[in-house]
Amino acid sequence: MKPGTGITLREIAERLEGELAGDHGNIVISEPASLREAVPGNISFLAHRRYLKDLQETRASAVVLPKGVSFDRLPSIRVDDPHFAFAQLLHLFYDLPYQSKGVDERAIVGRGVQIGRDVTIYPYVYIEEGASIGDQVMIYPGTFVGKGSLIGDHSIIYPNVTIREGCRIGRRVIIHSGAVIGSDGFGFVPYKGEHHKIPQMGGVIIGDDVEIGANTTIDRATIGNTVIKRGTKIDNLVQIAHNVSVGEDCVFAAQSGIAGSTQIGSHVTMAGQAGVTGHIRIGDQVTVAGQAGVTKDVKEGQTVAGMPALPHREWLKAMAVFEDLPELKKKLSELGNRIEEIERIVGDKKGGDGYGHKRDSKDPSP
Amino acid sequence: MKPGTGITLREIAERLEGELAGDHGNIVISEPASLREAVPGNISFLAHRRYLKDLQETRASAVVLPKGVSFDRLPSIRVDDPHFAFAQLLHLFYDLPYQSKGVDERAIVGRGVQIGRDVTIYPYVYIEEGASIGDQVMIYPGTFVGKGSLIGDHSIIYPNVTIREGCRIGRRVIIHSGAVIGSDGFGFVPYKGEHHKIPQMGGVIIGDDVEIGANTTIDRATIGNTVIKRGTKIDNLVQIAHNVSVGEDCVFAAQSGIAGSTQIGSHVTMAGQAGVTGHIRIGDQVTVAGQAGVTKDVKEGQTVAGMPALPHREWLKAMAVFEDLPELKKKLSELGNRIEEIERIVGDKKGGDGYGHKRDSKDPSP
Amino acid sequence: MKPGTGITLREIAERLEGELAGDHGNIVISEPASLREAVPGNISFLAHRRYLKDLQETRASAVVLPKGVSFDRLPSIRVDDPHFAFAQLLHLFYDLPYQSKGVDERAIVGRGVQIGRDVTIYPYVYIEEGASIGDQVMIYPGTFVGKGSLIGDHSIIYPNVTIREGCRIGRRVIIHSGAVIGSDGFGFVPYKGEHHKIPQMGGVIIGDDVEIGANTTIDRATIGNTVIKRGTKIDNLVQIAHNVSVGEDCVFAAQSGIAGSTQIGSHVTMAGQAGVTGHIRIGDQVTVAGQAGVTKDVKEGQTVAGMPALPHREWLKAMAVFEDLPELKKKLSELGNRIEEIERIVGDKKGGDGYGHKRDSKDPSP
Repeated sequence: MKPGTGITLREIAERLEGELAGDHGNIVISEPASLREAVPGNISFLAHRRYLKDLQETRASAVVLPKGVSFDRLPSIRVDDPHFAFAQLLHLFYDLPYQSKGVDERAIVGRGVQIGRDVTIYPYVYIEEGASIGDQVMIYPGTFVGKGSLIGDHSIIYPNVTIREGCRIGRRVIIHSGAVIGSDGFGFVPYKGEHHKIPQMGGVIIGDDVEIGANTTIDRATIGNTVIKRGTKIDNLVQIAHNVSVGEDCVFAAQSGIAGSTQIGSHVTMAGQAGVTGHIRIGDQVTVAGQAGVTKDVKEGQTVAGMPALPHREWLKAMAVFEDLPELKKKLSELGNRIEEIERIVGDKKGGDGYGHKRDSKDPSP
Repeated sequence: MKPGTGITLREIAERLEGELAGDHGNIVISEPASLREAVPGNISFLAHRRYLKDLQETRASAVVLPKGVSFDRLPSIRVDDPHFAFAQLLHLFYDLPYQSKGVDERAIVGRGVQIGRDVTIYPYVYIEEGASIGDQVMIYPGTFVGKGSLIGDHSIIYPNVTIREGCRIGRRVIIHSGAVIGSDGFGFVPYKGEHHKIPQMGGVIIGDDVEIGANTTIDRATIGNTVIKRGTKIDNLVQIAHNVSVGEDCVFAAQSGIAGSTQIGSHVTMAGQAGVTGHIRIGDQVTVAGQAGVTKDVKEGQTVAGMPALPHREWLKAMAVFEDLPELKKKLSELGNRIEEIERIVGDKKGGDGYGHKRDSKDPSP
Repeated sequence: MKPGTGITLREIAERLEGELAGDHGNIVISEPASLREAVPGNISFLAHRRYLKDLQETRASAVVLPKGVSFDRLPSIRVDDPHFAFAQLLHLFYDLPYQSKGVDERAIVGRGVQIGRDVTIYPYVYIEEGASIGDQVMIYPGTFVGKGSLIGDHSIIYPNVTIREGCRIGRRVIIHSGAVIGSDGFGFVPYKGEHHKIPQMGGVIIGDDVEIGANTTIDRATIGNTVIKRGTKIDNLVQIAHNVSVGEDCVFAAQSGIAGSTQIGSHVTMAGQAGVTGHIRIGDQVTVAGQAGVTKDVKEGQTVAGMPALPHREWLKAMAVFEDLPELKKKLSELGNRIEEIERIVGDKKGGDGYGHKRDSKDPSP
């Protein structure tokens, strides 16, 4: 929409696939806002029951509510998932219609580059020969696209991204500034005390609807491809090494890293600063806790934490004791003293030498 | 100063706000050097008492000393803090006077961009429409400044920086190469097994005198602003997520990271590779040790370490025992054997079965 | 070679300095492939004895084998180290001969810049005055080379790299996209509650045959130089702070970091996400395990792990117990109960009070 024009409640309900409660479809909404910050003309939403009080007091003109909540002070749209509806609302109100700016004459496009319809290629973009750019792709200034690389329709490449040669980027992919796709895998052969480079001949394949964070690095494969599958979202400063394969709909938080040749399933979550070693397999639906270090295969559905990573519950139990270690050590020492005392008494009774605590316990004879 | 011309000791003393001992104000100093490396014509300084021997032997023509030190072999300037004086000396001798180079014709400046006085905009800089650049700002090649973003007076933006749309950068800010300011926050709503992007409509506000390291990333807020307040210094490869707020005069070392919506107080120190989870509060004057992982609120003035982070003293005590765990386990096993032996003896006396160690200790009857 | 032309087995044997078994030197090989994927015309290699079965079944026309393996079904080349031979094979088949493209007119080269023979300087490269570029150097688009910096012969600088002023890069160095060489060291003096910048006057020296990963940052020294010596290989997103010195032939995996003024020996390995604190010394041949945090000097040849880092064996032993901590705590509690029971019995015999477990064990009198 254009700022200031507004959208009717009926249109919003249709877009959210929600049910409009009552006969208020013609109300014009100016923009979304939180329950507390909303003013008349705004639409708001209930994200969690703990905000029910804010709902009672909001000045919004309409609200998006989960289906079960009883509330009729204001016009409402009833949906299954208000969080998802909130994201849709933001798109509805703030997404500007795409307008192609074409290929700027100060961009450099190599021989044989295929350019789709309605693209926007900014100045200072450099596209090498044989690359292919899909329809409505936006490429911001300072971005490099190497020989023969492909960028699918509707993708957005922000400023100062490097996509090296022979990489395939899917449709609706978003690559944030400073990200590097297709840098050489870190492969060397030690020989006579020096490290000799293994040529990195492979590529990178990024599936549809993937998002790649700022300054994240995804190395090309030695042979074959490093693969990130459809729908996976990668945060800033993440390292994906050569020949890694990542499944669909994963979420990798900032500063996490995956070492070479590891295979990651689908719907895997990596929290911030977590690391996974090379040449292992992480099953579907696995969650790796923040700063965890995964050193061996993890089966489907597990949550792991710690370094080396353990099943989350075991790690929590061990960490709970870790905090008490000084206390444990003290108790152990006390028990030792008490045993010594007992040994003295018992030993006295059976003629011991008073040094029971130094006796070899495997030899019970004094 | 121009190299080779020199500065008199009197001028140096004035600049350092120090006391010149004796009548040596007309001595001309060529440049600063360490006590050991100084040659005649240099000025040196005593950073710590452990260098007193070097002070006795230095060939420097003058020295900067703390007020309490007794020394009169050479002309000296007496100051409160020789470390601070050293930093001032380097500025005094090496800072070149700023000379505007204007806006290079090979830079691209969009419509309606406001440009202050005496700026230096290098070639291959791209400034989008509606941005505003303060007086004496330097912007190096390859840097992108998005729509409507502001850069305050006397700031320096090194090569290949990306500042996305709607960001406000204060005065005297230094942003190092490859840093990304205003990349999208990492916000998605899971819905039917896929992750749906939450549009990131907010911005970033960077206060005066902030320094931001190479390849550091600071995400824009979902709504509102990600905020870094006056005087905070951020090292390389640091991640600041969306909607984070950082107070004044903090120091974040390299590769540290702050997850979304966390609020950090003032004068907070984060050591290298430390991480802080999202949606928590870190009080003023807190220190987070290297590689620590902070998972819950930390009160003012605390030092924390470990993952999950504990008060530093508790962590040190627990880690001291951690190293001894194998020994502890062995001792525990030995105590077990000794108890077994005692139980055998005591049990014999009261007719036990010799399997005392397997008895349920809650049921003392044999 | 040109794709599709092939190389004779004799030529390959000469290049690998291997022994050609039998009289098959005229066989023409099209390209290398793994044992399983090879088709007639390919050459393959035995990387490890566990692939002996694949060797028996491969469809390759020739194989590279270690000298000891008995096999004569196919023509073979016998070498000392098949891994190293594999890297050489990839170079032999896939390295394209270097062809200079000269200095593009859309690159900007400052006054007094020395340019060697047969260079390739792409568009949008910015080289400041007084820099020096060696023979056959390739510099990709978006790269910045600061005042007076040197780049040695045959080096490759990928897109969007920043090399600040006063840095010296050796010969045959490879710097991947987004890397920043010579950003300011992170040096501040606290004074009256604020952090005052220490001017970073030094430089960076990178030795011959060094490789630097994508988005890695290497800070300039305060005074003197940050040094990376010959043959060291650095992965992506690594932080090397100011005044660090790194020896020869080291390998630093992704997201590792070295804090300021630390000295690293030669042949040191840092695994992923490992960190080393400032102002310490790491000896030659040291290995730092993944995510380890090194807080004090490490002597030559040691392997360390954990945070704070311990000798690897000690850490393994302690971690083995860590997992069992809940069990240990339980056992300790059980032993306590058993001792209590014994004390009750023994105490009964000598007239105890039944509260033996609460007695001060140093005072055996009840």
